[in-house]
Amino acid sequence: MSSESETKPLDLIFRPRSVAIIGLSRGAVGSPVSILTSLEDFGYDGDVYVVNPKMPAVSGITVCKTIEDLPEGLDLAVISVERSTVVDIVERCAGRGIRAAIVITQGFADADEAGAEEQRRLTEVIERSGIRVLGPNTIGVADARAGFTSSFIEISRDPASPVGQVAQSGFLMMGHHLVNNEAAGFGKTVDLGNACDLGLVDVLEYYEADDDIGVIECHLEAIEDGRGFLEAAARIARRKPIVALKAGKSRLGLKAVASHTGAVAGESRVYHQALRQAGVVEARSAEELRLFSKAFATYGKAAGRRVAVVSFSGGGAVLALDAIDDAGLELAELSAETLDSMRHFFPAWLEIENPLDIWIPIAKDMESSFPAILEGVLNDDAVDAVLCIYCSYNLPKYQNFDVSQHVSRLAASYPDKPIACWSYGQDIEGITKTVEASGKAMVFPSLDGAAQALAHLADHHQRTQQAARPQTARSGAAPQEVAGILQRAQGKAYLFTEAFEILEAYDLPVAPWALVEAADSLETATNDLKAPFCLKASSQDIVHKSESGGVVLGVERGAALEEAYDGLCQAVRRNAPGAKLEGVVVQEMAAKGIEVMVGMVRDPSFGPCIVVGSGGIYAEVLDDVALRVAPVDAEEARAMIRETKISRILSGVRGEAAADSEALVKILVALSRFALDHDAVQEIDLNPVIVGKEGAAIVDARFIMSDLAAGACGQGLVRADVG
Amino acid sequence: MSSESETKPLDLIFRPRSVAIIGLSRGAVGSPVSILTSLEDFGYDGDVYVVNPKMPAVSGITVCKTIEDLPEGLDLAVISVERSTVVDIVERCAGRGIRAAIVITQGFADADEAGAEEQRRLTEVIERSGIRVLGPNTIGVADARAGFTSSFIEISRDPASPVGQVAQSGFLMMGHHLVNNEAAGFGKTVDLGNACDLGLVDVLEYYEADDDIGVIECHLEAIEDGRGFLEAAARIARRKPIVALKAGKSRLGLKAVASHTGAVAGESRVYHQALRQAGVVEARSAEELRLFSKAFATYGKAAGRRVAVVSFSGGGAVLALDAIDDAGLELAELSAETLDSMRHFFPAWLEIENPLDIWIPIAKDMESSFPAILEGVLNDDAVDAVLCIYCSYNLPKYQNFDVSQHVSRLAASYPDKPIACWSYGQDIEGITKTVEASGKAMVFPSLDGAAQALAHLADHHQRTQQAARPQTARSGAAPQEVAGILQRAQGKAYLFTEAFEILEAYDLPVAPWALVEAADSLETATNDLKAPFCLKASSQDIVHKSESGGVVLGVERGAALEEAYDGLCQAVRRNAPGAKLEGVVVQEMAAKGIEVMVGMVRDPSFGPCIVVGSGGIYAEVLDDVALRVAPVDAEEARAMIRETKISRILSGVRGEAAADSEALVKILVALSRFALDHDAVQEIDLNPVIVGKEGAAIVDARFIMSDLAAGACGQGLVRADVG
Repeated sequence: MSSESETKPLDLIFRPRSVAIIGLSRGAVGSPVSILTSLEDFGYDGDVYVVNPKMPAVSGITVCKTIEDLPEGLDLAVISVERSTVVDIVERCAGRGIRAAIVITQGFADADEAGAEEQRRLTEVIERSGIRVLGPNTIGVADARAGFTSSFIEISRDPASPVGQVAQSGFLMMGHHLVNNEAAGFGKTVDLGNACDLGLVDVLEYYEADDDIGVIECHLEAIEDGRGFLEAAARIARRKPIVALKAGKSRLGLKAVASHTGAVAGESRVYHQALRQAGVVEARSAEELRLFSKAFATYGKAAGRRVAVVSFSGGGAVLALDAIDDAGLELAELSAETLDSMRHFFPAWLEIENPLDIWIPIAKDMESSFPAILEGVLNDDAVDAVLCIYCSYNLPKYQNFDVSQHVSRLAASYPDKPIACWSYGQDIEGITKTVEASGKAMVFPSLDGAAQALAHLADHHQRTQQAARPQTARSGAAPQEVAGILQRAQGKAYLFTEAFEILEAYDLPVAPWALVEAADSLETATNDLKAPFCLKASSQDIVHKSESGGVVLGVERGAALEEAYDGLCQAVRRNAPGAKLEGVVVQEMAAKGIEVMVGMVRDPSFGPCIVVGSGGIYAEVLDDVALRVAPVDAEEARAMIRETKISRILSGVRGEAAADSEALVKILVALSRFALDHDAVQEIDLNPVIVGKEGAAIVDARFIMSDLAAGACGQGLVRADVG
Repeated sequence: MSSESETKPLDLIFRPRSVAIIGLSRGAVGSPVSILTSLEDFGYDGDVYVVNPKMPAVSGITVCKTIEDLPEGLDLAVISVERSTVVDIVERCAGRGIRAAIVITQGFADADEAGAEEQRRLTEVIERSGIRVLGPNTIGVADARAGFTSSFIEISRDPASPVGQVAQSGFLMMGHHLVNNEAAGFGKTVDLGNACDLGLVDVLEYYEADDDIGVIECHLEAIEDGRGFLEAAARIARRKPIVALKAGKSRLGLKAVASHTGAVAGESRVYHQALRQAGVVEARSAEELRLFSKAFATYGKAAGRRVAVVSFSGGGAVLALDAIDDAGLELAELSAETLDSMRHFFPAWLEIENPLDIWIPIAKDMESSFPAILEGVLNDDAVDAVLCIYCSYNLPKYQNFDVSQHVSRLAASYPDKPIACWSYGQDIEGITKTVEASGKAMVFPSLDGAAQALAHLADHHQRTQQAARPQTARSGAAPQEVAGILQRAQGKAYLFTEAFEILEAYDLPVAPWALVEAADSLETATNDLKAPFCLKASSQDIVHKSESGGVVLGVERGAALEEAYDGLCQAVRRNAPGAKLEGVVVQEMAAKGIEVMVGMVRDPSFGPCIVVGSGGIYAEVLDDVALRVAPVDAEEARAMIRETKISRILSGVRGEAAADSEALVKILVALSRFALDHDAVQEIDLNPVIVGKEGAAIVDARFIMSDLAAGACGQGLVRADVG
């Protein structure tokens, strides 16, 4: 963040005191669909200049023939000229002392190579001149309070809205009415476009410091600086809720992966987990994005997850239970006092409980029963929130069923007990206006949306109550010898014995091993090891050890060992004739235990991610994994393990004793440390790690070096190649 | 179905020629919320009688003091009296020759034990008198074409609607405007209530025969006659689409289970699969229910799954790809001709492809470009359907962006290429009216809904094209000896050796075994078996064989066998002192292979269900299963196996040869036959079945008898007890 004393770059963009519009056609004057009309409708009171040599005089606006005719030092230029002239125009703007620019024009890095080149030139101008730029390829911004916009979109000015939007396309600004309700609105909105200068984190931090913004709504397609985003989001989300929609989830399976870990840690999983770790509320659709941010803008705190259901319809109540269950909410247990207080509204034969099917009281006398029942529930200490289901039939005919004023009033009286509504009938829109009139209740288009929103409200409240987790996981100096091992391994594509050495340097329990480089050192090299052994070929050139005959299991000491050693060497020579055999790893067979996979993959946006899950040769098929963006501390590692199915096996099913999960925790934490200490390794598979009753043993390890991964596509290292 | 010559019972209910209303208060006359008002508004032209001794004369209606004053032989009585008088009233109606009744009154089997008793008495009256009854606990019916309803709900009469609704609560009728759009409407709607007489299958078959009904919409809470439902639905769904919402999915984990199979085959999984097998479109929410049935009412056939996206917004197009991916649709590959035909609308630097981001052409000149682009796409043979994303901004200001008339017109011209729309902007409702004016296109509230609907349209088309699968799986006489084995086992709670015998009678490959009842017969009994052996205790009283020391693995012949036999007997005596040991099963150890679980569970609604998935002691933890309601034929068994993760392992990963899946298919088909041949067995676990390169071996089997399962709750056999 820039210091408070100078104007923030984004203030120049969102609320300029003066703006020059460059590239506006003459036809725009008087057109209903034009920035000029928008600024007038919006009531913008800054100075507006239009640069166009052929434009006639326009009332209230200064027309200049060229940029050089503009007064010096304007706050902002809004530029929508042919792409070939953009760079020149921006440079001339900077020359005229204009402090910031919104470049609307498309066809830069979003288009062809020529466009990408233009964008590079634009970046040079920005760096040289100091002008700040939003875009290119953007429709820019709108600021409801400043009355400013660079777009032609009609915006219902709602100065009270606490929602700050940021999108990686024009999508949110163009579709800000997506959910057809004005209360959703926005205070500020911005399309980042190609973000050649001002980007996502700049906007998030700008909104963080803006007291008018209470809820942040993000549309994300790709995040370049994932770590920067995570750090800012994690800090901000503990105060202001951030709701995000990740678009483009289906673009999977395209990136090159060289490990099991890479295969299971798809882009979608990494994004999902990264948002979750940052405390960002993930919306699964554009509709949820607007609903959740509207919910945060509407409700006060929701202190917990215990929900009471008050429903006109028994059938609706059953559906509400499904939604509550899916959202991980709980059904509140109403107190005997609460139930007694409403008992007289119901026939004697009807047992009342939560969910409350209130059809009989309503049909008899809504006015006397509904407010009493709803308020009774709100007063119950065991209730954190209410899911209210009612009908929205035409008025005045069905006014005996119209609960909207009661809901609106009681929602305002109990601001910290959200009343989430769902309704059916032919005038949902009309009745909703009354329910939402107090601004303290809202009507959801689905029970699922209502329940999910309540869950997110409760989660956010919990987040604001927790102290920030200190990220101690990275502390502790990297073992000194590791740099040397990596140095020695330089030029290698995969590490095997060096991987063992690195793991041991981090105090991790590799099953005892020795590298035997010649038959005559077999006995001395394995002197300290306990039989039976496992023999593995060590060679840069062999990707699939087993398939080349490069693995032999269960070998006893003595003649059997010699025989197995010779056999392995012969098999490798036969099956992989070109391969250089660096030696044979002789390793103790691990004691019985549960096969787990541990891994690391370096995501292009978010950096190293740690993975744990069911291991063995079927790890990918089982696809039972938990993932975290590093760092992972012990607490987080335990949470990861709990997320997997294998955790049930680790904790002992069918009367078995529990396995030593803490040994696994230690491996995860150390792997996270290594991944942050050194970026030379792109992907890691430790598979299997055998977790026993006491301790764990890393039996196999494979490190894929970053240099290899960078060229992975060229080398045909795609999914099918995982070995 | 009743024969065509007599009036169908449901005709008496939906479109009576005469109706007596019993239990109407005097206040109902002139009330806006009353059946009398509804019948008048609806334009019902049958004869209406009101039975009420105190009711004054009402114009157009005959008021009678008692039921006995009614003319003989009316079609229908609508009864809403105190529950204690219902049975008497129905009996008197029957006595007066009234042919059918709708019992609105609540408080029967839906309430307390006294209510359940009243319902039993009601059923007796029905059986005795022949009167047909809908309800009790129902709001009855509405029939748009007949202008008849038993409810007080205002219904927009839409005689063209082909939707027939059936619900297990008043939910659908009360909320028929749930999706705020009249085109959804309905032709007929019914609340089954407690369904003491007329039920779900009656209504489905009534709709099947009704030429006015083209789409059937179901709200299901619990199905009593699951097999009857499946049979009717499977037949009807090949002609008329059936869309169903299953409510109450969260009521899981409550039923007693005594097997792994029971534990993994929850109610939700059974319903989901049963609906799928019947070709019923499953809606996941009330909103989807209305959307999908509206889609079927709107669109002609969708011949395939190849979708073109035409979008005002690049950001929207990215979200559309996610939705297409999630719905299992494909992105259509537009022909070079199609792309060439629209090339001139786009700048040269923009590469055009599906999805088409048409913002630039639209912003330049919508009128010339949009219809040409949309029609170009519709004309492409590679396109089966279009997902169209546009803005709905206020008119007339933004009329240059208003594509609604073009969409409506082109949708009508290409009825077999559905145009599914999604829109953003401040007047979605207004613009939608124009889009939907032709009745051939619709606007979805989410991209996900649009994509799911297109997928269901394509699936339904495919269903109508396929010949019905002959259900041959049940053919073949049951092996004669099985009845004898079951007879012999009577009184047992679990079968073990008898289970092996039954499986062998069905020609299934049990790993060779012998039951040894005394040490001195050990040698002769095992003479034909190949070592090494596995020994297992056979005892009714031992649920967890391993934990009682009742299993010994890898035993060689000779002294080792004798020793193991004695050891096992001693261990059982020590660990399970009260258990009666019937003998010890000596069984050949199966050859190496993949551990699979096969099972059967008898669902209370749908009957026997067959399950296959990952096996071994962790089967439940892995929860990798496919399920089918029996019968399962070979084709279906192959499809089941393909659904599991273990299928990838069976087909050979990492260079391994494929396992003999066909051997597994044979087991599934035979288990299905057995489950239909004999209902004495409630649940079956075959776990593990070892599937090798050639053949499979059933290593362990456990049959839980129906008598035991019936009393399972009393015996504390709940989830935690699965052994």
